[in-house]
Amino acid sequence: MSSGVQVPTTANLPPIIAQLFEGKARKGLTFDQIAKELGKDEVWVASAFYGQAKFTPDELKKVAEVVGINSAELVQDLGDHWWPNRGLGPIPPTDPVIYRLYEGVLVYGHAIKAVIHEKFGDGIMSMIDCKINVDRKPDPKGDRVVLTFDGKFLSYAKW
Amino acid sequence: MSSGVQVPTTANLPPIIAQLFEGKARKGLTFDQIAKELGKDEVWVASAFYGQAKFTPDELKKVAEVVGINSAELVQDLGDHWWPNRGLGPIPPTDPVIYRLYEGVLVYGHAIKAVIHEKFGDGIMSMIDCKINVDRKPDPKGDRVVLTFDGKFLSYAKW
Amino acid sequence: MSSGVQVPTTANLPPIIAQLFEGKARKGLTFDQIAKELGKDEVWVASAFYGQAKFTPDELKKVAEVVGINSAELVQDLGDHWWPNRGLGPIPPTDPVIYRLYEGVLVYGHAIKAVIHEKFGDGIMSMIDCKINVDRKPDPKGDRVVLTFDGKFLSYAKW
Amino acid sequence: MSSGVQVPTTANLPPIIAQLFEGKARKGLTFDQIAKELGKDEVWVASAFYGQAKFTPDELKKVAEVVGINSAELVQDLGDHWWPNRGLGPIPPTDPVIYRLYEGVLVYGHAIKAVIHEKFGDGIMSMIDCKINVDRKPDPKGDRVVLTFDGKFLSYAKW
Amino acid sequence: MSSGVQVPTTANLPPIIAQLFEGKARKGLTFDQIAKELGKDEVWVASAFYGQAKFTPDELKKVAEVVGINSAELVQDLGDHWWPNRGLGPIPPTDPVIYRLYEGVLVYGHAIKAVIHEKFGDGIMSMIDCKINVDRKPDPKGDRVVLTFDGKFLSYAKW
Amino acid sequence: MSSGVQVPTTANLPPIIAQLFEGKARKGLTFDQIAKELGKDEVWVASAFYGQAKFTPDELKKVAEVVGINSAELVQDLGDHWWPNRGLGPIPPTDPVIYRLYEGVLVYGHAIKAVIHEKFGDGIMSMIDCKINVDRKPDPKGDRVVLTFDGKFLSYAKW
Amino acid sequence: MSSGVQVPTTANLPPIIAQLFEGKARKGLTFDQIAKELGKDEVWVASAFYGQAKFTPDELKKVAEVVGINSAELVQDLGDHWWPNRGLGPIPPTDPVIYRLYEGVLVYGHAIKAVIHEKFGDGIMSMIDCKINVDRKPDPKGDRVVLTFDGKFLSYAKW
Amino acid sequence: MSSGVQVPTTANLPPIIAQLFEGKARKGLTFDQIAKELGKDEVWVASAFYGQAKFTPDELKKVAEVVGINSAELVQDLGDHWWPNRGLGPIPPTDPVIYRLYEGVLVYGHAIKAVIHEKFGDGIMSMIDCKINVDRKPDPKGDRVVLTFDGKFLSYAKW
Amino acid sequence: MSSGVQVPTTANLPPIIAQLFEGKARKGLTFDQIAKELGKDEVWVASAFYGQAKFTPDELKKVAEVVGINSAELVQDLGDHWWPNRGLGPIPPTDPVIYRLYEGVLVYGHAIKAVIHEKFGDGIMSMIDCKINVDRKPDPKGDRVVLTFDGKFLSYAKW
Amino acid sequence: MSSGVQVPTTANLPPIIAQLFEGKARKGLTFDQIAKELGKDEVWVASAFYGQAKFTPDELKKVAEVVGINSAELVQDLGDHWWPNRGLGPIPPTDPVIYRLYEGVLVYGHAIKAVIHEKFGDGIMSMIDCKINVDRKPDPKGDRVVLTFDGKFLSYAKW
Repeated sequence: MSSGVQVPTTANLPPIIAQLFEGKARKGLTFDQIAKELGKDEVWVASAFYGQAKFTPDELKKVAEVVGINSAELVQDLGDHWWPNRGLGPIPPTDPVIYRLYEGVLVYGHAIKAVIHEKFGDGIMSMIDCKINVDRKPDPKGDRVVLTFDGKFLSYAKW
Repeated sequence: MSSGVQVPTTANLPPIIAQLFEGKARKGLTFDQIAKELGKDEVWVASAFYGQAKFTPDELKKVAEVVGINSAELVQDLGDHWWPNRGLGPIPPTDPVIYRLYEGVLVYGHAIKAVIHEKFGDGIMSMIDCKINVDRKPDPKGDRVVLTFDGKFLSYAKW
Repeated sequence: MSSGVQVPTTANLPPIIAQLFEGKARKGLTFDQIAKELGKDEVWVASAFYGQAKFTPDELKKVAEVVGINSAELVQDLGDHWWPNRGLGPIPPTDPVIYRLYEGVLVYGHAIKAVIHEKFGDGIMSMIDCKINVDRKPDPKGDRVVLTFDGKFLSYAKW
Repeated sequence: MSSGVQVPTTANLPPIIAQLFEGKARKGLTFDQIAKELGKDEVWVASAFYGQAKFTPDELKKVAEVVGINSAELVQDLGDHWWPNRGLGPIPPTDPVIYRLYEGVLVYGHAIKAVIHEKFGDGIMSMIDCKINVDRKPDPKGDRVVLTFDGKFLSYAKW
Repeated sequence: MSSGVQVPTTANLPPIIAQLFEGKARKGLTFDQIAKELGKDEVWVASAFYGQAKFTPDELKKVAEVVGINSAELVQDLGDHWWPNRGLGPIPPTDPVIYRLYEGVLVYGHAIKAVIHEKFGDGIMSMIDCKINVDRKPDPKGDRVVLTFDGKFLSYAKW
Repeated sequence: MSSGVQVPTTANLPPIIAQLFEGKARKGLTFDQIAKELGKDEVWVASAFYGQAKFTPDELKKVAEVVGINSAELVQDLGDHWWPNRGLGPIPPTDPVIYRLYEGVLVYGHAIKAVIHEKFGDGIMSMIDCKINVDRKPDPKGDRVVLTFDGKFLSYAKW
Repeated sequence: MSSGVQVPTTANLPPIIAQLFEGKARKGLTFDQIAKELGKDEVWVASAFYGQAKFTPDELKKVAEVVGINSAELVQDLGDHWWPNRGLGPIPPTDPVIYRLYEGVLVYGHAIKAVIHEKFGDGIMSMIDCKINVDRKPDPKGDRVVLTFDGKFLSYAKW
Repeated sequence: MSSGVQVPTTANLPPIIAQLFEGKARKGLTFDQIAKELGKDEVWVASAFYGQAKFTPDELKKVAEVVGINSAELVQDLGDHWWPNRGLGPIPPTDPVIYRLYEGVLVYGHAIKAVIHEKFGDGIMSMIDCKINVDRKPDPKGDRVVLTFDGKFLSYAKW
Repeated sequence: MSSGVQVPTTANLPPIIAQLFEGKARKGLTFDQIAKELGKDEVWVASAFYGQAKFTPDELKKVAEVVGINSAELVQDLGDHWWPNRGLGPIPPTDPVIYRLYEGVLVYGHAIKAVIHEKFGDGIMSMIDCKINVDRKPDPKGDRVVLTFDGKFLSYAKW
Repeated sequence: MSSGVQVPTTANLPPIIAQLFEGKARKGLTFDQIAKELGKDEVWVASAFYGQAKFTPDELKKVAEVVGINSAELVQDLGDHWWPNRGLGPIPPTDPVIYRLYEGVLVYGHAIKAVIHEKFGDGIMSMIDCKINVDRKPDPKGDRVVLTFDGKFLSYAKW
């Protein structure tokens, strides 16, 4: 079987990733449903499916069970010796969904930087210790996507 | 006078922009303080200072007053006939604050796209009808930056 | 069978796409003929063949029937769990047909932007809620291509 | 005087261009108003203001008069010996208005090419013998931008 | 069999193209010999071998016969439903033969443009209605390549 | 005085070049007229005006006289110690006139290379010992630009 | 006065930076000498001179005194309202000293990543909470540069 | 067997490399453990696994034994006639671990260069005669990565 | 058999090339030994192995014999109808050996150009009629690589 | 005075460099003549004029005297506190003289690397401890440029 899963073919990802997506498609599961089984957020689980985060061995077994693929094979490929090789897709992004995020950086990046500095001083919002959520907010003029980055502020070292 | 304001010199921005930053620096104002005078959010005001949004004529007069620069000159340069030429800075960003936002797109963009599709269907989060906030959330392990994009979902047309 | 279909091989597209093109070629159908069967416009159908739009399950079944390929396989690959990964081809385009569109952006983009602002204010023409048509207009000096983008105007949010 | 006119500073354009924009701003004219004086379309006039098209000597004199700048200087700078050096702005465009046009090429370019070939054969839509219009179409769900390219079809030579 | 034919492997070309080159190699034919059979010029025929031009069905049959490959397969792959996807190779070209042409654009492009404008006005030399020849001109100091582009002049539309 | 001459401002060219173009514009001369005074071809003279070729001291004096600028200054700036720094403009070219030449390389480069090899063997057409002409060929369907590169064939060394 | 200081002219740095370098040159000071006055490391001080770190107001006054420039002007330009815009120079670096560091990333980056993962798990070495030193280690075969990055390990968040 | 080893698939590396990683994964070895067997440092061994350094024939045999793969095959593929083709991964790096190293070059490269010049004169730190270590330094606020480059200083030749 | 030969996998080279390298490895030959058999220089032979030069039919047979591969297959693939597609590897080069050559162009290119002009006038050193040698020069401080380019000077044509 | 000296205007070079070239032009000196005064090679001196090498204080005084410019100003700008920022010009080079060197890397780089490895082992030819010469070799078929790189071989460290 080979479903039209959306794993970027040019990415440097383990082939087992395709099986994760195919199992998910076959069972008709959403990331939210899988995430609930794991006790995790759907965005984090989706990022792990794309090879951008690392499951623990227990999570690997649970995921294999939920999407119905071979657990041993999954552990063998994404287990202890595998580490995410992060960063996917063309730059600038060609897909409009991802491009709009990128456009947010282009248009509002300097403003966000200025306000972070005024509120926190010289430093950055961590993208490592950062949690990301996507919510649907009902709105009579059209529902809205609420995308939140919640990242630790890190001060610049001086030495 | 010429302060070390952080207007990107390679950007295609009107020279009056430098005066806005200099006035703000001279008066020791934060974007939040200016925003309160205008009844706007600090991120939006910062984006307008960087030439990434358009003040109304009334806002221009108010801003000129608040930062202490010539109102007529500001209206003449950023008034009715001026439209923002949006998009600032090198790609990929070299500044670590802005780069981290960009890294968020690289690492989590596909996951965010997947979850938006599962929650909303085929479409995008608008970056035009989008409001952006930066909040400081106290945390005993180190305060956190909470960056929120609140954008209207737009369905893809079919015809 | 493997016809010389023009699916960009470097694109991140599901392999089933090739079958759509091969079926269309085998039956000698135009996009207009397929579009009429679906009650859609030919440009939209062509974009969906290139993986740039999403068929509904009913449309997938109808398309499979019209081009004579396996319906279940098509639904499996481009069905509920598949979402378009939009954006095709090299930038700048090397093909002269596509390059001319791109040249239109290079040469007339600033003028179009200026006129949109003067007619609508600060905002954009949506490329999400946008319908595109290609017509042939007879002309004694040589027939003309009339390419129309009909997109919703979106005002920039201020907050 | 120096208004915040939006001439791309990195472009290879004659300095006189800034005066055209300043005169237009000072008089509070739209491109449509100037175009009516010249018997031309507003998109074409805007493209000429950006140095992307060539006025005749008569048009130069008329334009100088309409926007209130020195006619002789304008003729001297944009007259017989000056030819447009076409193509403006960064690629990909950073401004969202222009980027959306570019996104149209990325997402729908292959579909448009396919339909042109099916309707006309092997050739292109000319971007040299091409007329471009921007119209505002009222719509209860939000007015729409109708952008039309009307270009001559050119068949590929075979020899 | 698989000869070392020079089809660019990164190009988006139909696989049948390799057979054309292999047949030509096997029979020891030059493009000039094939062209004479078709009543065409050798440069045009070579461009069609590289997938940069479109044979008619009759030409496809004739070509298949001349190079000794299966006619039906060739028609199936490069027939009515196939359109050239033009533009080949890296930019800038790395091969010195092709780079020299490109260097001609870099070094003499502005001069050629200036002379075209002085001789014809505001417009371009068409690369669509253009015939290209390569001749060998004997010269006692070393024979010379005479490369000719014969393209229709197209005036810029004004509207 | 500052005419709107088309010297690429980003090029690494001596400022005196602007005076050459201004003198030519002031006197209303074509490159062909200047070339006849020098006993040279118009394309070569244009390339020298753009700093892409080197005048002899005698030619510099003659050119200064013909376009009416200071001879000593011209000799001082473009004389014995000055050597052309060749290569002008963005890549790919944004101007459609120059882009079409570049498109000729993209679309027909491989075909031209193949035919050169078949007619001459392993080597290149020199772009150093190369003469370039632009002619106007009358044609009832529209006059044609005939652009000729006449370059020495150079065989590859083997050692 | 204008010494040949090595401030990258293409960088988006405040002009006052040039005065820092000129004062340092005039007094013949090394970064180590300045750093000792400030109680800081020479690499950090050099990075601040290049606008890549932020002095406190006290440090600004001390620096102004040490290099002999106007303290008020320095505070005005690099004071409370100024934040570093980090990231300097072309990519890849053209200067061999900087290129070698970059080559270290190209050649040893994957190995360093692998060892960090094996010693620490899934996370990164912070470049924000990172101290950098350059030492000279005597060696009979030629003294050695010992460059040390001492950065906090940050674990990837899971949520 | 095919584990999810992290060999960059776009790199120009011998296929045998995948076996090295698979053997290492199967045996559950760290680079440090393998390095101890070879009497080498773990960073160097990791770089050799990634094809960025050259094992001696003895080392190849030892490595094959340690990771449990066929020794003759390894010697055949990475033996006397194989030389590393150094340099891996996209530029700029997309993986955050590697990007941080790169960011160190962007932000601190000029400072490091300045201090090297002040301590050593005109020259570079060799990346050829350079030893690299990664250490874990315990720290109550969070353990730290200590990354050291120990490279010979090379003076610039003058002749 | 498949040795770890260093043929750039992204290059557009005939597959037979891999056999040349494998035969050479199997027999333990150096390029110098093969070159002596052919009466050629080792650099030229190596360039031909990389598909960057063209063997005569006689040379092909001799090479096949020397490295022990099938002569007919080699002639079939690299014979009369094959022409080198020159230019290999990423730009800028990532491998340090090749990068150093490239760095020579970056750092010393303008100086070399200036001296060529002063010694020869306006023209270039041919890279077509050019012979390249690599010698080992003993030196007590460390042996030296002497790399020589011996290329014909070509004067710029004027016409 | 401002001669048409060929200092790359986009380079990050001290302005005093222009005076060096102007003095040289005014006195009609070649690099060889200046080099003889300094007891250096002409290529090295030319590289120092382009800011790609560092004169000693004594050399600076001698150079100032030879080209007739102010010695104190030269020492002030290029003296103890100035270090070369190496690497000049666009990549790939647009000037044909420099491009040919670059083409040598593209076409022969892999062959040169292979031969260096066979003659020396795993390492590189230093471009830091490297001497470069340009000689004119008379030849009845046309004089030849002999360009020599004489660089120390550096072995790769293993640790």
